[in-house]
Amino acid sequence: MLLDKPNTLEINDQRLWDTLMVSATIGPGKSTGLRRLALSDEDKKMRDQFVRWCVTAGCKIAIDRVGNIFARRDGQDASLSPVLMGSHLDTQIAGGKYDGILGVLSGLEVIRTLNDRNIETRRPIEVVCWTNEEGVRFQPPMMGAGAFAGAHEIDWVLSQTDDEGIVFGEELQRIGYAGETDRNPADIDSYFELHIEQGPILEEEGIDVGIVTGGFTSFGAQLIMKGEHAHSGPTTMKQRKDALVGAAVIVAKVNEIGWDYEPKGRATCARIDVSPNKYGIIADHAEVTIDVRHPDPDLADEMYQKALALIPVASKQANVEIALVKEWSFGNVGFNPDMVNLIRSVASDLEVPHKHLLSAAGHDAYHLSEIAPTAMIFTPCKGGVSHNENEHIERSYTIPGVNVLLNAVLRRANS
Amino acid sequence: MLLDKPNTLEINDQRLWDTLMVSATIGPGKSTGLRRLALSDEDKKMRDQFVRWCVTAGCKIAIDRVGNIFARRDGQDASLSPVLMGSHLDTQIAGGKYDGILGVLSGLEVIRTLNDRNIETRRPIEVVCWTNEEGVRFQPPMMGAGAFAGAHEIDWVLSQTDDEGIVFGEELQRIGYAGETDRNPADIDSYFELHIEQGPILEEEGIDVGIVTGGFTSFGAQLIMKGEHAHSGPTTMKQRKDALVGAAVIVAKVNEIGWDYEPKGRATCARIDVSPNKYGIIADHAEVTIDVRHPDPDLADEMYQKALALIPVASKQANVEIALVKEWSFGNVGFNPDMVNLIRSVASDLEVPHKHLLSAAGHDAYHLSEIAPTAMIFTPCKGGVSHNENEHIERSYTIPGVNVLLNAVLRRANS
Repeated sequence: MLLDKPNTLEINDQRLWDTLMVSATIGPGKSTGLRRLALSDEDKKMRDQFVRWCVTAGCKIAIDRVGNIFARRDGQDASLSPVLMGSHLDTQIAGGKYDGILGVLSGLEVIRTLNDRNIETRRPIEVVCWTNEEGVRFQPPMMGAGAFAGAHEIDWVLSQTDDEGIVFGEELQRIGYAGETDRNPADIDSYFELHIEQGPILEEEGIDVGIVTGGFTSFGAQLIMKGEHAHSGPTTMKQRKDALVGAAVIVAKVNEIGWDYEPKGRATCARIDVSPNKYGIIADHAEVTIDVRHPDPDLADEMYQKALALIPVASKQANVEIALVKEWSFGNVGFNPDMVNLIRSVASDLEVPHKHLLSAAGHDAYHLSEIAPTAMIFTPCKGGVSHNENEHIERSYTIPGVNVLLNAVLRRANS
Repeated sequence: MLLDKPNTLEINDQRLWDTLMVSATIGPGKSTGLRRLALSDEDKKMRDQFVRWCVTAGCKIAIDRVGNIFARRDGQDASLSPVLMGSHLDTQIAGGKYDGILGVLSGLEVIRTLNDRNIETRRPIEVVCWTNEEGVRFQPPMMGAGAFAGAHEIDWVLSQTDDEGIVFGEELQRIGYAGETDRNPADIDSYFELHIEQGPILEEEGIDVGIVTGGFTSFGAQLIMKGEHAHSGPTTMKQRKDALVGAAVIVAKVNEIGWDYEPKGRATCARIDVSPNKYGIIADHAEVTIDVRHPDPDLADEMYQKALALIPVASKQANVEIALVKEWSFGNVGFNPDMVNLIRSVASDLEVPHKHLLSAAGHDAYHLSEIAPTAMIFTPCKGGVSHNENEHIERSYTIPGVNVLLNAVLRRANS
């Protein structure tokens, strides 16, 4: 298991792959991917499997009030704060088999490899599964990590509901992951997150490891349009207050903003809700979410201001009132330089080709970076495709990154 | 009850109003209107009430396989085909208390008035409630009248499903209106439909009765956009195939076509369905309905061609495939000149101010006009508002039109 480089370890990549393939059977999607929504029966089944694996690997399990799972491998000095590594096991509605999952199961593989070699570390090491990273069923995304890092009140998280009105806290009880652990977030040493890139750069450039130095700055907003019911036949264009038209103008023009900032900027309205949304009747109510992202925080802000400037335009065009009811922002983080340097020096020692990247997606690591030294490792994925059942990685894409994780965690845990 | 004009009768307007107010309590909406969707419990309750009223008025009830209710007052000569009058008792999700309902209950009032005066007619007279005119829960609109007139196969109608997958035929059984009457549509003499205008002209011009000579030509279409799931963060604008953007471009630009044909033309997309429709994931599927209407058939066709020409535009802009999956058209009808002349001459005899109009909305009468001499009477409504809980009429708006209906039906039934 020793690499032929001095003082470096190597994972059991067959075991990691087999573990991933077990996960790939839990909550199958329509075609080749997964549909394992947060706090669903499938999420419970995967959590149960993950806990069994961790217990078998000798870990102690702790579950906090929002369902985050911490599996600890003790260190030599119990008074030292632990090194954490992890990601999430939930998926999108039509998600892939690796997004998030790879980060958790890589953490498990790190612990298994240390066990294989009976290696003790000074600090405890923990692999973490954060609850509801995807934000599909319950909003916002990165919910469990956010609650852990103090960005959200626990009770607020527990009171959130899905589109069917099911309450987060009740669903967490139902699946048996409403824990009681109340840990101090200041008591962690550091956090590593390995994740597929969800972008095409590493694969295109033939580079094994992306060292993530920070995130795209992302701004989000939710708009509500208030129109008026009317019959689509006799109602003249001038008489109309069409909420769907207001929303459509926003969606189409937000997309144009994205094109104005190609290739680095992205602008999306991914969700629209319209009422009554029936043939023959003009909608009196519509909602849209806006999502703009750019690696340059100033340009991200510029894009967001342009998106907000569409509100009076759409309001006039559709003769509707438009209210900005919610705003959020994430990703404007720079990861800890010591952690970035540690990953880079491990990658160099292992002679793994690597480069610095920014992440365009949201990650649990963003929240962790607010409370502890944090960094991320990206590994390649086919065509940059994710949030799609066709998300795919080759085994060879993954091994170098997980080896970097293993050795970086080991060094940090002995520091 | 005799008007001071020779040979004319007058309805009991207090009784008509009281009857309308009973209907107004069945399936109340959120504020002042009604929500009485086709084949719902509320629809059943209203149908039961209507049948009781008709039976009390001495009518024989027949119900056909799609749930249309025919209440017959016998004539002197049973060998003669009947004069029909009616409309529908179902409403929009947030509909008014008069749309359609007034037409059915006016028919009942005609029968009650004839009963009051012991007037016999040569032909039988029937008041009809057509099933599912609104097309909210089950599509298409004007379903029952269309099935009666042979525009739809009965078995096809019975197999339609609502958004929850509930089957029309099963729901009709459930509410007890799956009848067995199988009447020959050729065996009716004529059809009268009284309806609120659903437009502002009569009220604005202070005219009591609109004599409807035909309909706006209406074209409808359903489009499906096929995009691809992708993450809204890492996916560059160039990589996207965003089904929601394709749909939004259609919605916004169809609205512009309407403005190009103001004030007579109207263009609407009233319904959009998007999947997965979640924050953070680009939609792979979207559907929209297009609805364009113009009194001039050539201009309606021109508008519709412009709407279809948006397909390649939106397809290119959103990088999605767009399929035209359904098309329909209605309203390009001219009502029977004898029937129009009869209504006009009755209105003149009654000294009721009247004018010719086209209807911009769909009506059961369009289907009936394919099988029998048909015409419509419009009465004013406040501000032209309908398909809205604020739909309103004054009692005084209604009386002249129902008196015209009464006397026109009487003359036709004695012809």
